Amino acid sequence: MTIQLTYSGNFEDISSTSFQEKLTQIRENLHQKVGAGSDFLGWHDWPSNMTDAFLNEMKETAQKIKSTSDVLIVIGIGGSYLGSKAVMEALSSYFKASSGVEVIFAGHHVSGEYLANLMEYVNDKEVSINVISKSGTTTEPALAFRFLQTYMEKRYGVDAASRIYVTTDAQKGSLLHLATEKGYQRFEVPANVGGRYSVFTAVGLLPIAAAGYDIQELMRGAKNAEAFYGTADFSNNTAMQYAAARNFLYNKGYEVEILATFDAKLSFVQEWWKQLFGESEGKEGKGVFPASVSYTTDLHSLGQYIQDGRRFLFETFLNVQKVQTDLTVFEAENNGDELNYLAGLSLQEFNKVGYEATSKAHLDGGVPQLALTIEKLDEYHIGELLYFFMISCAYSAYLLDINPFDQPGVEDYKTNIFKLLKKPGY
Amino acid sequence: MTIQLTYSGNFEDISSTSFQEKLTQIRENLHQKVGAGSDFLGWHDWPSNMTDAFLNEMKETAQKIKSTSDVLIVIGIGGSYLGSKAVMEALSSYFKASSGVEVIFAGHHVSGEYLANLMEYVNDKEVSINVISKSGTTTEPALAFRFLQTYMEKRYGVDAASRIYVTTDAQKGSLLHLATEKGYQRFEVPANVGGRYSVFTAVGLLPIAAAGYDIQELMRGAKNAEAFYGTADFSNNTAMQYAAARNFLYNKGYEVEILATFDAKLSFVQEWWKQLFGESEGKEGKGVFPASVSYTTDLHSLGQYIQDGRRFLFETFLNVQKVQTDLTVFEAENNGDELNYLAGLSLQEFNKVGYEATSKAHLDGGVPQLALTIEKLDEYHIGELLYFFMISCAYSAYLLDINPFDQPGVEDYKTNIFKLLKKPGY
Repeated sequence: MTIQLTYSGNFEDISSTSFQEKLTQIRENLHQKVGAGSDFLGWHDWPSNMTDAFLNEMKETAQKIKSTSDVLIVIGIGGSYLGSKAVMEALSSYFKASSGVEVIFAGHHVSGEYLANLMEYVNDKEVSINVISKSGTTTEPALAFRFLQTYMEKRYGVDAASRIYVTTDAQKGSLLHLATEKGYQRFEVPANVGGRYSVFTAVGLLPIAAAGYDIQELMRGAKNAEAFYGTADFSNNTAMQYAAARNFLYNKGYEVEILATFDAKLSFVQEWWKQLFGESEGKEGKGVFPASVSYTTDLHSLGQYIQDGRRFLFETFLNVQKVQTDLTVFEAENNGDELNYLAGLSLQEFNKVGYEATSKAHLDGGVPQLALTIEKLDEYHIGELLYFFMISCAYSAYLLDINPFDQPGVEDYKTNIFKLLKKPGY
Repeated sequence: MTIQLTYSGNFEDISSTSFQEKLTQIRENLHQKVGAGSDFLGWHDWPSNMTDAFLNEMKETAQKIKSTSDVLIVIGIGGSYLGSKAVMEALSSYFKASSGVEVIFAGHHVSGEYLANLMEYVNDKEVSINVISKSGTTTEPALAFRFLQTYMEKRYGVDAASRIYVTTDAQKGSLLHLATEKGYQRFEVPANVGGRYSVFTAVGLLPIAAAGYDIQELMRGAKNAEAFYGTADFSNNTAMQYAAARNFLYNKGYEVEILATFDAKLSFVQEWWKQLFGESEGKEGKGVFPASVSYTTDLHSLGQYIQDGRRFLFETFLNVQKVQTDLTVFEAENNGDELNYLAGLSLQEFNKVGYEATSKAHLDGGVPQLALTIEKLDEYHIGELLYFFMISCAYSAYLLDINPFDQPGVEDYKTNIFKLLKKPGY
């Protein structure tokens, strides 16, 4: 099944002629590659344009990493971190290693203790590194790589070079020069794909494949999503409907969107989603503020605020229909915990009732409700979901007259920190 | 040092006679145990009233758990989960086990896969369980305990009882009856302490001690905080100042507070803080919405929104002055990464510059800035910090004329779900 949307408001609100006209035009611009930020539309037809040769290169490199390494340290921040982390977490099993290498991130923050302990941790394991930076000049991953590159050269000598993989721009940046000089194997971050839209490029695919997940299925989901959610037919385009609903609610004063899940494995999909929407829309004093909760945990936390606090929230549930493993409540002899009334109910069914109870209570409490439903957490459906959010985000930002593909505030921060650190040239 | 507050506004804004009078009255009410919700003020003088006998009981029980077990499964949700999790994460080392047992949480969400895999994971390890539920009737932990209790009885037979520890109300609830019937060792959640204020009771102390952390130092910090932040002298009371600043900003239309850290170990302190403030203040259509970011990671994500999005945000930094382990950037021979200009700078110093750059940029972008600074992440300072937030939250909620100690919305959800599940009596 494709992604389903339910909406607590009147569907006429979001399928009005005005929304349909605007979104049809936005879609047309995306296809024609025109409009604000159109230099960064590489992600839009990436799944349908991606070649088998490229996918095979990813798989073969992943195979080489798996055959030589126990651990792959992935160095990246922002879009070079959140996408592959989101996919790997969503596909992981609790308390069980994946079938590939152990992937450990670094350079996603700055911590001497983290790096020192990481180097100690991997000392008795075989290691490879994938350093990812689109610009090749972002400070945090560059700092982590300075320490880890030295570590690798001390440990592996001249063989270190064959264990270091670089994913960066094909034309510019200090990481490119370093890779060329040292002879590291290189992969490209296409110049026309921004960090937060890069999960289906080598940025995401190489770590995901090395961790043992099926990137062919992931891309099959993304490719189908490109067709499903790129259709001009509003009534069959859930991504357009989601964008319209967000815009409608925002204009009614609902300025905070809470993405709510009932599966803890989706917590990094939520973080990735926050970057995608926050960084794409949060400009010119506009944009829905993206927040997230993990239920039922947070029903015993932020649930109170959502039920009764300031009425400027709307809530989007991301529901998963089927789980791989479930348990069913059994009848207990003494019923000391008084739970026998639940006997025969599975824990997944409990969560579905939890969803119904919560959604109804929050709607009654004045919080508009959306729900997106996917079938299950596997490569295909995660690929579909991430592409769905990417194109929804483009539709949504353009409805606000915002360029979805730049990030002037992040560039401000980078410049500020270079100035304070007295980087030559700043 | 005590917790330091800096505030980007005019300190006269928050030290006005009106704030001082209101907060002096609130403080007096807390000391006299009067005012809305005063039945739940047990936490307020808990640190100074706590006996050595109680602390020794916690330590001895933790010792017993450590000597018999590799893993302690802590079953709890909301306040019975977030407090001890926050303390343990803040005190942990990356990639290294603590000196105590491995603590694994359960019942903080509902997942058949999680429980099934957990039981498999602990099969070759010695296990104890601490099940925590103030009411003794919350469904999620009760469900997890039904499965895990059966597991323990199958595995350990009659000896299971000596490996199960129950923390619950002393007078009522099905968990109390179950514990009495089975002869489990019991600890009390005081009736006058709500879940989100319970970290310094057995709810938090037993798991924290079992994990190998020094609860005596934790409580020394909390006890000092009770004195420091309970003083009537506004100019020396950072907790009153923090509450006043939040209230001042809220009334100016800054309705979302972002708690920002530069240390990933504080992520569960942030989650605990969200519960504390969100559940205490989010009532009657009022309250600051609590959100959080982890820098520098999120400078490459929500940073854009904070810089340039809707101007209804204020930001509170939680800064840590000293780290235990640091690395210093070294001079590289070829300088291929162009980072030699940072040689001699430690990574912690980099984070301090990151804080300055970020705070200045966000302030210029129209986001009022607060900063709380603690000396370091050890038991003493974490104890001080958590008490600081608890009393700040009471001051803050009373400034909004909100009872900080009830949670009618959470009770609504519990009732809703009981009705949908057709629990007898609902």
